Amino acid sequence: MQAYTALAATFARIGAVEDASGILGWDMQTMMPNGAAEGRAEQLAQLRVIAHELLTAPRTGDLIAEAGEGTASLGEWERANLREMRRLHLHAAAVPADLVAASSKAASRSEMVWREARPRSDFAMLAPHLAETLRLQREIGQAKGAALGLSPYDALLDGYDPGMRRARIDPIFSDLRHSLPDLIETVRAKQQAGPAPVPLPGPFPVETQRRVGLELMRAIGFDFERGRLDVSLHPFCGGASDDVRITTRYREDDCTGALMGVLHETGHALYEQGRPAAWRHQPAGAARGMSLHESQSLLVEMQACRSREFIDYLAPLLASAFAGEGAAWSSQNLHRLATRVEPGFIRVDADEVTYPAHILLRYELETAMVAGDLAVADLPGAFNDGLKALLGLDVPEDRLGCLQDIHWPGGSFGYFPTYTLGAIAAAQLFAAACQAHPGIPDALARGEFAELMGWLRTNVHQRASLLDTDDLLIAATGKPLDAGDFRRHLARRYLGNADMV
Amino acid sequence: MQAYTALAATFARIGAVEDASGILGWDMQTMMPNGAAEGRAEQLAQLRVIAHELLTAPRTGDLIAEAGEGTASLGEWERANLREMRRLHLHAAAVPADLVAASSKAASRSEMVWREARPRSDFAMLAPHLAETLRLQREIGQAKGAALGLSPYDALLDGYDPGMRRARIDPIFSDLRHSLPDLIETVRAKQQAGPAPVPLPGPFPVETQRRVGLELMRAIGFDFERGRLDVSLHPFCGGASDDVRITTRYREDDCTGALMGVLHETGHALYEQGRPAAWRHQPAGAARGMSLHESQSLLVEMQACRSREFIDYLAPLLASAFAGEGAAWSSQNLHRLATRVEPGFIRVDADEVTYPAHILLRYELETAMVAGDLAVADLPGAFNDGLKALLGLDVPEDRLGCLQDIHWPGGSFGYFPTYTLGAIAAAQLFAAACQAHPGIPDALARGEFAELMGWLRTNVHQRASLLDTDDLLIAATGKPLDAGDFRRHLARRYLGNADMV
Repeated sequence: MQAYTALAATFARIGAVEDASGILGWDMQTMMPNGAAEGRAEQLAQLRVIAHELLTAPRTGDLIAEAGEGTASLGEWERANLREMRRLHLHAAAVPADLVAASSKAASRSEMVWREARPRSDFAMLAPHLAETLRLQREIGQAKGAALGLSPYDALLDGYDPGMRRARIDPIFSDLRHSLPDLIETVRAKQQAGPAPVPLPGPFPVETQRRVGLELMRAIGFDFERGRLDVSLHPFCGGASDDVRITTRYREDDCTGALMGVLHETGHALYEQGRPAAWRHQPAGAARGMSLHESQSLLVEMQACRSREFIDYLAPLLASAFAGEGAAWSSQNLHRLATRVEPGFIRVDADEVTYPAHILLRYELETAMVAGDLAVADLPGAFNDGLKALLGLDVPEDRLGCLQDIHWPGGSFGYFPTYTLGAIAAAQLFAAACQAHPGIPDALARGEFAELMGWLRTNVHQRASLLDTDDLLIAATGKPLDAGDFRRHLARRYLGNADMV
Repeated sequence: MQAYTALAATFARIGAVEDASGILGWDMQTMMPNGAAEGRAEQLAQLRVIAHELLTAPRTGDLIAEAGEGTASLGEWERANLREMRRLHLHAAAVPADLVAASSKAASRSEMVWREARPRSDFAMLAPHLAETLRLQREIGQAKGAALGLSPYDALLDGYDPGMRRARIDPIFSDLRHSLPDLIETVRAKQQAGPAPVPLPGPFPVETQRRVGLELMRAIGFDFERGRLDVSLHPFCGGASDDVRITTRYREDDCTGALMGVLHETGHALYEQGRPAAWRHQPAGAARGMSLHESQSLLVEMQACRSREFIDYLAPLLASAFAGEGAAWSSQNLHRLATRVEPGFIRVDADEVTYPAHILLRYELETAMVAGDLAVADLPGAFNDGLKALLGLDVPEDRLGCLQDIHWPGGSFGYFPTYTLGAIAAAQLFAAACQAHPGIPDALARGEFAELMGWLRTNVHQRASLLDTDDLLIAATGKPLDAGDFRRHLARRYLGNADMV
């Protein structure tokens, strides 16, 4: 028990350092003047090294071993906490310090080069830097894999989504790969046969967009005593425990982009705000991986807020806020806009039906790159062939193809699948919530989220990292991660018939 | 040389942690939601402990001793750096880590309570938190005093103003205590015999005030690539190296308060922005104590920007910004407003003649509190008696009395005297600058600060902590800290005759 108590103090300190980094990271994207960039990078790097040193200190390893011998005296949460401490320690201790430093440096450099190469569509400029970043990530994957008894890719994946494995993903993604092209074609044909959606006529004053966003955040349950809404170039959810900060970006000629961004990030934020207070600063109190995190944002944005019921609530609210009149502002048209399916080049702009295709492609490419079966030089060709096969599109230049995402230049291999695993978990959780509380859709039509959020709080947020992802899903929905509800959701929303898939 | 190099790396890390704390502190006062207060206190406390552990590590002490034996190979700056490292190490090593953590946490909490207690004028609400903060500061003063061979108060003072002692302050303050009431009376009589200043007619839109403030900051030389202007309850200059953030507060019915706040904090900011780039993250590159820091803010606000010359520049600028017309907007009237002497309750609103009275009072009270001669429960009474004796005012409620300042709730005992020591240094430095460059007053009448700021940059900012305060003043002005120029300044500006005092 003494060893456990000492560990809890160490991890509370690590948690405080990470919370501090979270606020500094938010500030970097929202408030920081340009000239402070170098100093801020140094501050964040030093804090990262401090946290890493605390995590990998021999004493931390000794305490974990010692505490592991006395688990009989620990409660359920304490045992889960010790399990997470061990996992974090193993991950961190597996990688030699000079490899951590080299990979972090290489990733920073290739990310910097990517910022220039993308607008120029110049893959050759990025290639050597990306190759170096990949080489070092493969080394990290091998080192972690050796320590954790996993393949290099699974070891990297485990860092973003604890417990997730290729063996679990492959059958799910394989099904999608076979069914998706047909589904997209059928949905497209159906939508093209019906009336085309009419774009909402702007302009949309930023202050009004912000006011509507705040109103919806409040309706969903965002706690403004413990969070904020701000502006950044790329929307994100960040900050610290009890200080959850989301961002969006506004365009005067479009209001749905910023709004859907707010709804998406609010889903992430409610997960963070709903974690159990007593465990906020310990590993067991952390959100359980990126798939479940993405499930919370997609549950709010895609499952709840693009439902016909919620759009019935939203349409008059938007018309009133922007003094809109006429058919464009009808609930029917707004729903058509919110569910339009259209294959496109850019992942972050994709609708929920074509989105998985972007992920399937990236998953296939990054597993091959980590396995050493795809060289960086061959990436553009493979990317373009894949997009053609999946969405029928010819990539005209790499900035619309393999240069569009920050993930690989930034050193994140193993992250992409969590987006679609999150979409699948979102459908599964929303279906279970509606089964438990059949009044949820009608409540959404009144802009009421209390019942839905109450169910999520109990079944997801409050469980934090107490359970593995699959165990959490079993406890919440009666089954492990399963794509059935996601397929039924797409069929119901886009084909009007859940039995078709 | 190896020992010195290792020390420089350690202090660069400490500097990064302190910069991180600086941004978190800024955020706490400008952006943070209320519910995040407890977590933020924890983050700041953990960072302080981390910096403290780095500073007090046995290895750091050993390296300092080792480097001290090889100073022959070090340059002037490196030697100053080592001297500052030693001073910081001594200060820090004197205080046990748990006392550092407890005092940091208590101060954060009592500062948060103060934010609520002040508008309610509820001293009882603050009292137990302030008592705890004082108790821990007294412990710190005793511990440091024992290590440095100083009294507890001198030890605390040395943390804000290295080398400053009560024995140096007491005669200066004692003179002021005797001469101030007469001076105030004489000035008041003179001003009452002349025409009364006419208040500028408002309202003053906040956005316009902000725009004018930004324009003046730019004129003085503030670098917006490395800093910001924001709003907080109590104006301050904070942030990090290369990220200097100042704040002010706005009232719709007054524009001079916010503006003078901006000018004052800009003086602080230019000191920070003007420190030598190569030494930014090392102790020798730090600003040399709070008296010199305050001298820079007061030099800008009081010496330069309330001069008749600058007011000649400012008056038409303000009239144009706020579309003001008539005699109230004349330079003569504005100068009367900017130099009006009127005893008042609020220190930060005080004119430069009555301001020292506020400091004399706080100095007397805090030396008594640290000595254990004044209990927190007796503070309101003692404060009110003191203000009556010095300025003839009856404090009607504590928010206008001992609840007005953030310092004591925030744990800063030994800070207040630096305001008046700064005013004295400001007069001394401004006189020397004008002697070196007789064109400075005329330049101010054109809104041009380059010559003044160039002199300050060379003689103060760029020297950072290379020299002690008195040595820096000798190098810049030919003499150590001396109240003569301050007395002559007051006599010239307020009585029209420098020989009268």
